[in-house]
Amino acid sequence: MARAVTMFTGQWADMKLDDLAKTMKGFGFDGLELACWGDHFEVDRAVTEDDYCDKKREQLDKYDLGCWSISTHLCGQAVCDIIDERHKAILPDSVWGDGDPAGVNDRAAEAVKNAARAAQKFGVPVVNGFTGSSIWHLLYSFPPVPPKMIDDGFKLFADRWNPIMDVFGECGIKFGLEVHPTEIAFDIYSAEKALDAIGHREEFGFNFDPSHLLWQGIDPVEFIRYFPDRIYHVHIKDAITTLNGRSGILGSHIDFGDHRRGWNFRSPGHGGVNFEEIIRALNDIKYTGPLSIEWEDSGMDRLHGAEESCEFVRSIDFAPSDVAFDSAFDKEKQ
Amino acid sequence: MARAVTMFTGQWADMKLDDLAKTMKGFGFDGLELACWGDHFEVDRAVTEDDYCDKKREQLDKYDLGCWSISTHLCGQAVCDIIDERHKAILPDSVWGDGDPAGVNDRAAEAVKNAARAAQKFGVPVVNGFTGSSIWHLLYSFPPVPPKMIDDGFKLFADRWNPIMDVFGECGIKFGLEVHPTEIAFDIYSAEKALDAIGHREEFGFNFDPSHLLWQGIDPVEFIRYFPDRIYHVHIKDAITTLNGRSGILGSHIDFGDHRRGWNFRSPGHGGVNFEEIIRALNDIKYTGPLSIEWEDSGMDRLHGAEESCEFVRSIDFAPSDVAFDSAFDKEKQ
Amino acid sequence: MARAVTMFTGQWADMKLDDLAKTMKGFGFDGLELACWGDHFEVDRAVTEDDYCDKKREQLDKYDLGCWSISTHLCGQAVCDIIDERHKAILPDSVWGDGDPAGVNDRAAEAVKNAARAAQKFGVPVVNGFTGSSIWHLLYSFPPVPPKMIDDGFKLFADRWNPIMDVFGECGIKFGLEVHPTEIAFDIYSAEKALDAIGHREEFGFNFDPSHLLWQGIDPVEFIRYFPDRIYHVHIKDAITTLNGRSGILGSHIDFGDHRRGWNFRSPGHGGVNFEEIIRALNDIKYTGPLSIEWEDSGMDRLHGAEESCEFVRSIDFAPSDVAFDSAFDKEKQ
Amino acid sequence: MARAVTMFTGQWADMKLDDLAKTMKGFGFDGLELACWGDHFEVDRAVTEDDYCDKKREQLDKYDLGCWSISTHLCGQAVCDIIDERHKAILPDSVWGDGDPAGVNDRAAEAVKNAARAAQKFGVPVVNGFTGSSIWHLLYSFPPVPPKMIDDGFKLFADRWNPIMDVFGECGIKFGLEVHPTEIAFDIYSAEKALDAIGHREEFGFNFDPSHLLWQGIDPVEFIRYFPDRIYHVHIKDAITTLNGRSGILGSHIDFGDHRRGWNFRSPGHGGVNFEEIIRALNDIKYTGPLSIEWEDSGMDRLHGAEESCEFVRSIDFAPSDVAFDSAFDKEKQ
Amino acid sequence: MARAVTMFTGQWADMKLDDLAKTMKGFGFDGLELACWGDHFEVDRAVTEDDYCDKKREQLDKYDLGCWSISTHLCGQAVCDIIDERHKAILPDSVWGDGDPAGVNDRAAEAVKNAARAAQKFGVPVVNGFTGSSIWHLLYSFPPVPPKMIDDGFKLFADRWNPIMDVFGECGIKFGLEVHPTEIAFDIYSAEKALDAIGHREEFGFNFDPSHLLWQGIDPVEFIRYFPDRIYHVHIKDAITTLNGRSGILGSHIDFGDHRRGWNFRSPGHGGVNFEEIIRALNDIKYTGPLSIEWEDSGMDRLHGAEESCEFVRSIDFAPSDVAFDSAFDKEKQ
Amino acid sequence: MARAVTMFTGQWADMKLDDLAKTMKGFGFDGLELACWGDHFEVDRAVTEDDYCDKKREQLDKYDLGCWSISTHLCGQAVCDIIDERHKAILPDSVWGDGDPAGVNDRAAEAVKNAARAAQKFGVPVVNGFTGSSIWHLLYSFPPVPPKMIDDGFKLFADRWNPIMDVFGECGIKFGLEVHPTEIAFDIYSAEKALDAIGHREEFGFNFDPSHLLWQGIDPVEFIRYFPDRIYHVHIKDAITTLNGRSGILGSHIDFGDHRRGWNFRSPGHGGVNFEEIIRALNDIKYTGPLSIEWEDSGMDRLHGAEESCEFVRSIDFAPSDVAFDSAFDKEKQ
Repeated sequence: MARAVTMFTGQWADMKLDDLAKTMKGFGFDGLELACWGDHFEVDRAVTEDDYCDKKREQLDKYDLGCWSISTHLCGQAVCDIIDERHKAILPDSVWGDGDPAGVNDRAAEAVKNAARAAQKFGVPVVNGFTGSSIWHLLYSFPPVPPKMIDDGFKLFADRWNPIMDVFGECGIKFGLEVHPTEIAFDIYSAEKALDAIGHREEFGFNFDPSHLLWQGIDPVEFIRYFPDRIYHVHIKDAITTLNGRSGILGSHIDFGDHRRGWNFRSPGHGGVNFEEIIRALNDIKYTGPLSIEWEDSGMDRLHGAEESCEFVRSIDFAPSDVAFDSAFDKEKQ
Repeated sequence: MARAVTMFTGQWADMKLDDLAKTMKGFGFDGLELACWGDHFEVDRAVTEDDYCDKKREQLDKYDLGCWSISTHLCGQAVCDIIDERHKAILPDSVWGDGDPAGVNDRAAEAVKNAARAAQKFGVPVVNGFTGSSIWHLLYSFPPVPPKMIDDGFKLFADRWNPIMDVFGECGIKFGLEVHPTEIAFDIYSAEKALDAIGHREEFGFNFDPSHLLWQGIDPVEFIRYFPDRIYHVHIKDAITTLNGRSGILGSHIDFGDHRRGWNFRSPGHGGVNFEEIIRALNDIKYTGPLSIEWEDSGMDRLHGAEESCEFVRSIDFAPSDVAFDSAFDKEKQ
Repeated sequence: MARAVTMFTGQWADMKLDDLAKTMKGFGFDGLELACWGDHFEVDRAVTEDDYCDKKREQLDKYDLGCWSISTHLCGQAVCDIIDERHKAILPDSVWGDGDPAGVNDRAAEAVKNAARAAQKFGVPVVNGFTGSSIWHLLYSFPPVPPKMIDDGFKLFADRWNPIMDVFGECGIKFGLEVHPTEIAFDIYSAEKALDAIGHREEFGFNFDPSHLLWQGIDPVEFIRYFPDRIYHVHIKDAITTLNGRSGILGSHIDFGDHRRGWNFRSPGHGGVNFEEIIRALNDIKYTGPLSIEWEDSGMDRLHGAEESCEFVRSIDFAPSDVAFDSAFDKEKQ
Repeated sequence: MARAVTMFTGQWADMKLDDLAKTMKGFGFDGLELACWGDHFEVDRAVTEDDYCDKKREQLDKYDLGCWSISTHLCGQAVCDIIDERHKAILPDSVWGDGDPAGVNDRAAEAVKNAARAAQKFGVPVVNGFTGSSIWHLLYSFPPVPPKMIDDGFKLFADRWNPIMDVFGECGIKFGLEVHPTEIAFDIYSAEKALDAIGHREEFGFNFDPSHLLWQGIDPVEFIRYFPDRIYHVHIKDAITTLNGRSGILGSHIDFGDHRRGWNFRSPGHGGVNFEEIIRALNDIKYTGPLSIEWEDSGMDRLHGAEESCEFVRSIDFAPSDVAFDSAFDKEKQ
Repeated sequence: MARAVTMFTGQWADMKLDDLAKTMKGFGFDGLELACWGDHFEVDRAVTEDDYCDKKREQLDKYDLGCWSISTHLCGQAVCDIIDERHKAILPDSVWGDGDPAGVNDRAAEAVKNAARAAQKFGVPVVNGFTGSSIWHLLYSFPPVPPKMIDDGFKLFADRWNPIMDVFGECGIKFGLEVHPTEIAFDIYSAEKALDAIGHREEFGFNFDPSHLLWQGIDPVEFIRYFPDRIYHVHIKDAITTLNGRSGILGSHIDFGDHRRGWNFRSPGHGGVNFEEIIRALNDIKYTGPLSIEWEDSGMDRLHGAEESCEFVRSIDFAPSDVAFDSAFDKEKQ
Repeated sequence: MARAVTMFTGQWADMKLDDLAKTMKGFGFDGLELACWGDHFEVDRAVTEDDYCDKKREQLDKYDLGCWSISTHLCGQAVCDIIDERHKAILPDSVWGDGDPAGVNDRAAEAVKNAARAAQKFGVPVVNGFTGSSIWHLLYSFPPVPPKMIDDGFKLFADRWNPIMDVFGECGIKFGLEVHPTEIAFDIYSAEKALDAIGHREEFGFNFDPSHLLWQGIDPVEFIRYFPDRIYHVHIKDAITTLNGRSGILGSHIDFGDHRRGWNFRSPGHGGVNFEEIIRALNDIKYTGPLSIEWEDSGMDRLHGAEESCEFVRSIDFAPSDVAFDSAFDKEKQ
């Protein structure tokens, strides 16, 4: 099938896009999934400047790199989150503004709407991102959490994202939520609840990323089987659980990368994700979009990892069969 | 060795102590670990009324039940927590007051101090409880959490609990933190960090409860081996992980007891905790306090469970050997 | 909850019912699930003799034994099976007749209809049994099996069992198919297909028996979760897989009981079935019928096994909770 | 050692041999294991036409491809099977004839004898194939199967295959039964019984294929250790078990390739077979024949799979050591 | 079947037999396996004093305790061992003498011969014991061990034990070697080699003890299946492996009982031995001798353990079936 | 990071160094770890001949091969061992002399001292080797081993190795004990004891080799985490455990390479060692020395293995990251 292999630029925002594109082309990538931060893809300019999208496309063409999606994780996060000082570090000044929580939520929602408009202009069918969550901090139900508080969280999500999805609908763009801790959906059942809350509208689906599911004990393949018509984009990212009796799955308030944590992210192929079965499941649901590497591995040099992961993803992808088993035995067909 | 088997009354606060004591005696318990809520053990009255403690003791004596600890989980929780509406439901009016967060924190701290004074008066050496945590909601480090925010959380814990521990020291009472999600310490490394933060002062140790460690992937026996001199009290509580590829360890915002969660609490012996090895480890560290059942199992009748768990705990406890292996082969000793 | 514990008499047909009842009462059973062969429960006589059912009930009353179901595995098997010499050994002469396959199929179907009529007269709500299968021998698809051959097998099942189910409907009786190799349904997906074939009519459900699922790699609890409204009766029977690299799951054409087979049946509690989780799932779906032991263990004395299995089943059953978790913390309820 | 890597042409009968040979040469294969169906290797013509074998050899030589065995699975299957409509689709007209079962059995036996004669003429030492089985449908012993029915099945196998083996003996050719469900031998103990039945005559051995053993729970390496002198040919084929609590090992009457089945075949290296240990065991028994890929994977493009599997097989093969461990430490040898 | 449950007195040599017998009777034992050290069973006196055996039997009869074997582990050990200071502590003075190694070996051999003579007089059919080994210290083959050194060790074993076995043959007594590290046989293949070395003479068999096999990774059931006609006596003893990544299976030169070792002995039922499958295998080989507890558990009070282990062994033993599976379905038998 | 990949020449002593160097260069190695036996590195000559070291260096330079350590396993073994006939085969005549044990011990100690002097002259910072052990034969504590015997063994180790370490200190050379059965340290806790015995002097550390830890059940990564400042050199060597119920971990007195043993050494990548996690741990402790292959695999051709293992080691090594996770999200850094 030869799906396109792309690099998500979110973890490379410290590099200028031009340098990054040259580097990734050299590593063999087919394209980039542009992050809507740094100078990679500036949504505001895309919407307001007539030629921004054309020039961006030229910039990629120069390196013969394609682009099939842009990503707005950071602004998306600020739509439902209870805003605090952490958000200032990740939001553009125009969204952060005076930092007043309600205002930040509103401006973040507008920024995501603009991402859809920009995607339409730029000619990519999918915007990936986060949603944030107003109930993540209630994760462990103590002090006891009345069910209504959870329901209210999902309702708030619907109230804030339905208007955004309206714009996506108008633009003919799909939103792929990366199911992830701290988001409204972080596993199979919360993803189901989110779809229920937002009325299963077609604009809203998922950016499948196995790394966030693995350490929760969820089989990523089950996620694909559970939502076969909602896989709008795919991240290739690995993770590993290294529980040894002393480490814990909740991470001990210890930074990523420390071996005392019970799990960590890994360069693809260096962790516990079973990509073989994922490819087969993607074949079954006829996913033809890119396989986009989101590269995070606190224990490996970033450039080394980017290069080997491109080669790795090519080695795991393959086309499905169109011949039924044992049909060659049938003399009628010989 | 025959350690005492007690029932923690926290999950039975809807029953009057007198009824509860009669019931538990009938089930074969040796004593009760009294919760400082409901009418089980009222700290305010214990501190202010001269004969409260004597009468409470008489009430237990009537059923030939001992008491070796009291527990102040709910007020303890409010010492470090960021207060919200959930706390109102679990706090006494005198602590909740007008609900102003800073005031609640302060009044909760006073309540815990009084628990130490009451314990001294009542004649029990240990107060168990929670600490709360101002950083629990930062559990998953996204938006990125600067290390300083975590350090500040531990510092705030120390600032608020050191004065409390001073009172414990004056009273000759030990505090046993139940290491538990939503607390400052929820696994081995965060427990170590909490001890570091509070200067390893002797008043501060742990109420060992294996159920909160199991589903995090932590071997409860390792906890005992890691902190052999800090096990001040022991809860017997079981849990089970039922990950099946679809359920997740974070629980999907689904209530306890639902089979779609990746884990649940269980009546002792019905889950995955290896009590055999725990008893051996407790023997090694010479823990001689009670084995106190904290009974929570959303899938079993409460009275049925209480009765069978008392019998279960007796069946798992045994005394260590005082004979060295193979010494009987030695003809000198024959 | 204290569900009734019964013994299925099918494996004891060599004993007169009177002797068997006395023995089982002595072992502590609450009742019997009567097999429709031997003198245990004679369907023909029950239908044609006015007082047969009353006398049978008196016979059980004498030992204070209840009866909540009768079972017609052997005649049921002959409804869809391709008849051969093996069936002669298990069928009554009146059904076998001249052994002409089509005639045997017809007479077997009539016998099962009569079982429903007899059950109505006898006052039990469920008839358990087998269905047989005309496609079992096509199990492994070589020589290649065209899908139509499988579909035809399910169609034949529906054609033969719909008229039988009509009689069950008239009598207000339910049929519980024991999902089992050699039947039209032997695992979750074939059970689903059988329900589809017969139009999910309410008369047709399952006699849940975990032992036939375990060695196939199926989690018996999943079966209950998959068909929560179709569990009409429950068999308690255990099995074990003892694969060691040399033995095989298909059994090597070797008799049950030989240790060279990859799996065998076991007395309850001596195999690999997780009854704890089964009880919890039965509690969840509110199954209140009997727990009926079907005892087969080629390695254990039959009387020893019957006695200990009654005690075992009592030890694993328990009632569900009616108190929500943590509600005792709620001061409103104190 | 560099054993030859061949492709078994059975699953490619829809391609003309010339096209197939060119394709496989391009993928790097050393030779082909020719199926006796399609135009790959026509036994009748080989026996009756003087130059058929020479021309066939030239056809292979053109692409520098060797051939070390031919395979007659389909006719072999019809020797012992109870014939039904499925066989018509896989047998040549000359064997099927009027479809009268006894006649089909006889003609199939003659066809296998001719395969031996053709192999002698063609100059290959081994004919691989199936035997069929008259007792496969009795796999699960219900209705109860008297042991004599099983014994009769093995006797019938011996009666039909001894005359065939006589011809193999005369021609100096060995027969390699592919141990496989639906054959007289499908696991270790049934293979042992088959050898016993046929008197362990030297002409009869096995075409080792790990894929059929794996999902039965049998360690393929044990098969080699159990029958070290009977491994006459080797198929490299992979399989995977994907039991998840819902899927079953018996396959639910569902076609190969569907993810709801409990197991499926896989392109070599994509399943659960441990080829490392197989190579070591083959080294131990000094097997020097070809490693012949039988390629079946319902989830992968056939050409992609053929190419990568050739490379895969080369990567797993290696020569055994002829130096004893630690002998280099011995100063005598320095 | 109700096999006798006995206690091996070797680990209780510090208690007088009379006290021990009274204690064990109180715990419910059927008999004792007498150690040939302490005052439990003095071989020298048994051989030389006319009434020693009768009085010993009376001593047991007083408590209604049977005896089916005596055990001479310590003298047996000294037959093949390279003698050093450790042996002095375990040997009687009469065997140790001046401690000259060759003399100790000889006198130990005579002591074992006398044990056979005493067993005949005392009326028990089996003497259990160790053999020692002159090659145990060569366990790990570095510095490289020439195969001849190993062969010589087995030859020396045969040379020393054949004369002893001659006496056993004359007396009609069997010797049960407890397969155990430091003996000539410590696992399945070394046991096979030992039988080969001693010519498979009938007097020489095994005292089956699963605890020594478990931690070596050997399935004790396989041992029974491998040597079905050589199981002359059975020890019930449990062990556990507690490897956690830091502990090692070789034990780190650390004493038994320390949790840092990778394995330890356990009171029966508290370790990893699968007694269920052992009982089934003993049933299969028709072993009818005693189940003799050898009690060693450094983490449990000895008296507590003895009592509970007697009850445990009774709970695991059961008689085999004499009814074939499914025969009750057969109407011929009804 | 690109650590150097070297081949340890110990298993190639039957080849002249010149031939070996040429071969290994051809396979792609960066250097050699020279064994102090055969003609690879002659310590005596290095110490006494002025130009030996220079010429040796030239010999390596000719093939552009580096050298970062020399190894003296054989003489090291003889320092603490109880000397017997096996040592004659592995020691140079000058050390063996008349074979008198005490003299051999002394001369071996001198040889190791000279190795340090030679290393200084040759310009390599590390000498790897064994220590031998006077207590290895006491491994299994029967006959009972008084703790003092073990302590004495560690004391003897310290007495003999402290003077050797003094010379190492003078020369500025480190000694890397390969933790290995038959040495004073063979697992984590015995390594800790050895460090304690020798006073944790800086000259004494470890040559980390995962293959000897794996089959003991020890996680090699734990070894690195336990002794992060003592990893002076690294061997890349693999091993596999193949326990199947019949084989045992102690090896049955059977030679390496036989499949009946419970474990064997393997060419790197063909066994059970998790090199991925080892590289990450070595990155964490900032180990920058060579990755030196010690090649032993009784089932594979030596030259084939050497070549593929060089490629394998390059494929597993990678540099650590110097970018903190998620820092790219931080707009401050963009």
